[in-house]
Amino acid sequence: MKQKRFLLDESELPRQWYNIQADMVNKPLPLLNPATKEPLSADDLAHIFAAECAKQELDQIHPWIDIPEEVQERYRFYRSTPLVRAYALEEALGTPAHIYFKNESVNPLGSHKVNSAIPQCYYCKQEGVTNVTTETGAGQWGAALSYAAKTFGLECAVYQVKISMQQKPYRSSIMRTFGATVTGSPSMSTRAGKDIITADPNHPGSLGTAISEAVELATTTPNCKYTLGSVMSHVSLHQTIIGLEAEKQMAMAGEYPDTIIACFGGGSNFGGLAFPFMRHQLKGQRDDVRSTKVIDFIAAEPASCPKLTKGKFEYDFGDSAGYTPLLPMYTLGHTFKPANIHAGGLRYHGAGTIVSQLLKDGYMRGVDIPQLESFDAGLLFARTEGIIPAPESCHAIAATIREAKKCIETGEEKVILFNLSGHGLIDMTAYDSFLNGDLVNIG
Amino acid sequence: MKQKRFLLDESELPRQWYNIQADMVNKPLPLLNPATKEPLSADDLAHIFAAECAKQELDQIHPWIDIPEEVQERYRFYRSTPLVRAYALEEALGTPAHIYFKNESVNPLGSHKVNSAIPQCYYCKQEGVTNVTTETGAGQWGAALSYAAKTFGLECAVYQVKISMQQKPYRSSIMRTFGATVTGSPSMSTRAGKDIITADPNHPGSLGTAISEAVELATTTPNCKYTLGSVMSHVSLHQTIIGLEAEKQMAMAGEYPDTIIACFGGGSNFGGLAFPFMRHQLKGQRDDVRSTKVIDFIAAEPASCPKLTKGKFEYDFGDSAGYTPLLPMYTLGHTFKPANIHAGGLRYHGAGTIVSQLLKDGYMRGVDIPQLESFDAGLLFARTEGIIPAPESCHAIAATIREAKKCIETGEEKVILFNLSGHGLIDMTAYDSFLNGDLVNIG
Repeated sequence: MKQKRFLLDESELPRQWYNIQADMVNKPLPLLNPATKEPLSADDLAHIFAAECAKQELDQIHPWIDIPEEVQERYRFYRSTPLVRAYALEEALGTPAHIYFKNESVNPLGSHKVNSAIPQCYYCKQEGVTNVTTETGAGQWGAALSYAAKTFGLECAVYQVKISMQQKPYRSSIMRTFGATVTGSPSMSTRAGKDIITADPNHPGSLGTAISEAVELATTTPNCKYTLGSVMSHVSLHQTIIGLEAEKQMAMAGEYPDTIIACFGGGSNFGGLAFPFMRHQLKGQRDDVRSTKVIDFIAAEPASCPKLTKGKFEYDFGDSAGYTPLLPMYTLGHTFKPANIHAGGLRYHGAGTIVSQLLKDGYMRGVDIPQLESFDAGLLFARTEGIIPAPESCHAIAATIREAKKCIETGEEKVILFNLSGHGLIDMTAYDSFLNGDLVNIG
Repeated sequence: MKQKRFLLDESELPRQWYNIQADMVNKPLPLLNPATKEPLSADDLAHIFAAECAKQELDQIHPWIDIPEEVQERYRFYRSTPLVRAYALEEALGTPAHIYFKNESVNPLGSHKVNSAIPQCYYCKQEGVTNVTTETGAGQWGAALSYAAKTFGLECAVYQVKISMQQKPYRSSIMRTFGATVTGSPSMSTRAGKDIITADPNHPGSLGTAISEAVELATTTPNCKYTLGSVMSHVSLHQTIIGLEAEKQMAMAGEYPDTIIACFGGGSNFGGLAFPFMRHQLKGQRDDVRSTKVIDFIAAEPASCPKLTKGKFEYDFGDSAGYTPLLPMYTLGHTFKPANIHAGGLRYHGAGTIVSQLLKDGYMRGVDIPQLESFDAGLLFARTEGIIPAPESCHAIAATIREAKKCIETGEEKVILFNLSGHGLIDMTAYDSFLNGDLVNIG
């Protein structure tokens, strides 16, 4: 029988993250203070984030960052995640392509988000922080942070977009089960929230309102830091554990990818899988080349939120309210209102600084996936591989199917690797709508 | 760092199931035809079940049954499941005990049920069957069967208890995502269903009504077989893959269990974990003893459905309507109405034939867990090990915690192994009730 799953022994788990900034030819442009337009220092960022995260955010020197022992210990709760050969999907498509996926859905939190929640909480703990806070939409990140905070003995307060909290009550139950306090945003617990509610008592909330409340809580509470689940460079750094494992696992399978695909919201699961492979194509790393192949890196974004294919490269705010530093990135504008698609994790206007520079420099490309195509792909995947994918991950699957179908025409046995960033078990209302024929393409 | 997770290479996966009936000193008594009181033959059972399953059900000769190649192939989609050392739980309890759990929650269906759904559908396919049907309550079994049917190209019809279908809509969405037809029972699609609805238009349904409808569909539809997710001996046989893996994994950890614990509904996850270890304590297997330890086997049942501790050993029906063969087992009586606890999978009046004989002969014992104790245990487990357990599995965790606390008093470093039969992500309403203080002890 052919081997289907590839797992690493604990002794083989990566002990360092890969910092792609150090190897980039054109470095990301600096983050700017919106008032002074001056580049921000790590000290500036450390007012909000853990100091170590702030340092990692701006590190353009060190390609390898040691993973702290206690973080490695928590990673071992669920890592390595399996690299899986999708034989059944290949057969259903009739493609000569070899399709592999990295299965990040098989940790108890259900997505890759916990890979960064753990180190962020660890650094907070090390630095004497007692409370962490964040915003969350659909709740994957909030759930991951709630667990990570609990495991390091930190109090955790999550502001969840009010409308999401009502639409997906299970995710707030999960956060509460892990001991977090969950507040629907806008709330009366912050000045920002009060102002919003006073102006509009029925405001449904948005990531913008939730970020404002979380940042306010962090800056007005002693020993409290703000954390973020994507977009920032230190988050992608932590997520490189995905690609570093995948590289070893592909070697176990005796193959090397021609194409690497991940869905794209703020960039953390894409960067996490792609950057370790991409390093072989960057200057200064040529001595470390494992393959002469030039990999086709594809970020799959929703057609209704097409910042990679239709955004502009410019300085923009990270949040809709305009409270964050200015980030140099591809963006649809911070006031862009993404359509209400089920892939809540992909409803973000900007692409982050690293990916934006890499896209500008031609190392990767974006593709736009309509909502119905994403669920068609998700359903086929469920019925062949037995895993119900998160609506976000369905975008990566749809892009994979497109590439695999091209191989039917060309006859090429391309090796395609995609990231299954999470499962869809808390998103069954979305599948319900799709199965009932109620779902449409938006945007 | 100490190793936390133990996984088997694909080459080490078991290739045979273990049939404990062959090694039992006192064999289970025969199943009886309720009309004639004559023992049933495999041919009799094959009117309802796949012929191979009927044969396995009554096999008291062969201790090892080959796992078909195509079943092994499907097992490799998610097996081996991890054996995990629960260091964080141990630390929170302050116990000298070594706690291990077999994590059956990390397959895409979320519970151990798929271990039997796959072979049952495989045998149906081999025998020219085109349609399978079953009943399901909370829906773990129905979801597993829906996936397994799809992977072997069988049509699948599930009768789900109507009230459960309304209370846990996500589970029926999962079944539909895998392509099954899901009908709330009682329904107008069968004679039995029509009779029930005519008598009581608002009947909420029960496992009894759903079994009646599924059996009627199987017996009135060409090429359609009925399948079952627990209770029957062939189901426990398939589940021994759990214990056979665990035995190898405990050896990797360099330990051997003093105590083995699983929750108990119809017995399939308990038998699956326990039987392979128990074989060393049965006559004729002494030459194969891996340890001189006599293991304490504990089945954790809900206090509100205490068939193991308070039931009688007698012939009884498997369903509440009295359509099935008579089974010799510990039972609360087939008309017993279990309280409406959240652990829907444990709401069953009987213990099955093998476990009942083993209990009678003193090889194992039952303990009763009140609902609140089960959720206290589940919450502690979630907050230490990061996994939200199914309400059923919480009973095993509660029994484990009881044993671990005894070790604090005695100072014994006992090795406790329990089965985490499933995750609780589709049961968050139960955790919600518990966190809100709305949950009570029943029964």
